[in-house]
Amino acid sequence: MTPDEQAIRTLIATWMEATKTGDLDRTLEMIDEEVVFLGAGRPPMHGKAPFAEASRALERSGRFDGTVVVEEVRVFGEWAYCWNQIKVTITPDAGEPTRLAGPALAILRKKPDGRWVIFRDANMLAPAS
Amino acid sequence: MTPDEQAIRTLIATWMEATKTGDLDRTLEMIDEEVVFLGAGRPPMHGKAPFAEASRALERSGRFDGTVVVEEVRVFGEWAYCWNQIKVTITPDAGEPTRLAGPALAILRKKPDGRWVIFRDANMLAPAS
Repeated sequence: MTPDEQAIRTLIATWMEATKTGDLDRTLEMIDEEVVFLGAGRPPMHGKAPFAEASRALERSGRFDGTVVVEEVRVFGEWAYCWNQIKVTITPDAGEPTRLAGPALAILRKKPDGRWVIFRDANMLAPAS
Repeated sequence: MTPDEQAIRTLIATWMEATKTGDLDRTLEMIDEEVVFLGAGRPPMHGKAPFAEASRALERSGRFDGTVVVEEVRVFGEWAYCWNQIKVTITPDAGEPTRLAGPALAILRKKPDGRWVIFRDANMLAPAS
């Protein structure tokens, strides 16, 4: 495994840990200024500000837990893609937990300082039993 | 626009036309042997055979119409990604049409003969009004 592939796998694992602990500053460091988040049934979400807002709403909605399995990473110089299979559970203070599962396909870029960041994200999570 | 970007934009337009006309042989030429189709609420679909089966089921389900807008293409040598916004309508012989809309994020590769083909596809279409 190349250092770049290892760095991307670590980024994905760190992303999940930071989401679990509600560490928004850390997740924001892992996305590009020009990021676009794509998903079903909602318009494309451009940039860090709407992502931060959505993350805070998630934080308020309950306790977040999840796992991510990296299925594939391919690096092309300063760019890469990564396909992950994700499972998450959001447990509100009162009421039933919400379980979501499915794939995500991310485009990543390597910043001039050598850090990899998420540039595009295709989220295909759906309700799961 | 580079010749590679132009070729990918033409591929996406041709894909939609071939799907509209039910030209399965033509769509199969535009995907890699190792293709994986990703979507919400279903397992990853590997290879041409299950894609062909799903295409035939779509063909039987009614008349297909659609449009695709290419939002972004980035080429990295022999690899590329392409983000599209798609709208489709499937009109059965009897009953109401089904309308779907949303983004798709595709990873493409350039074959040794110079043709671009779809290698990964993240489908985020959802019911639309």
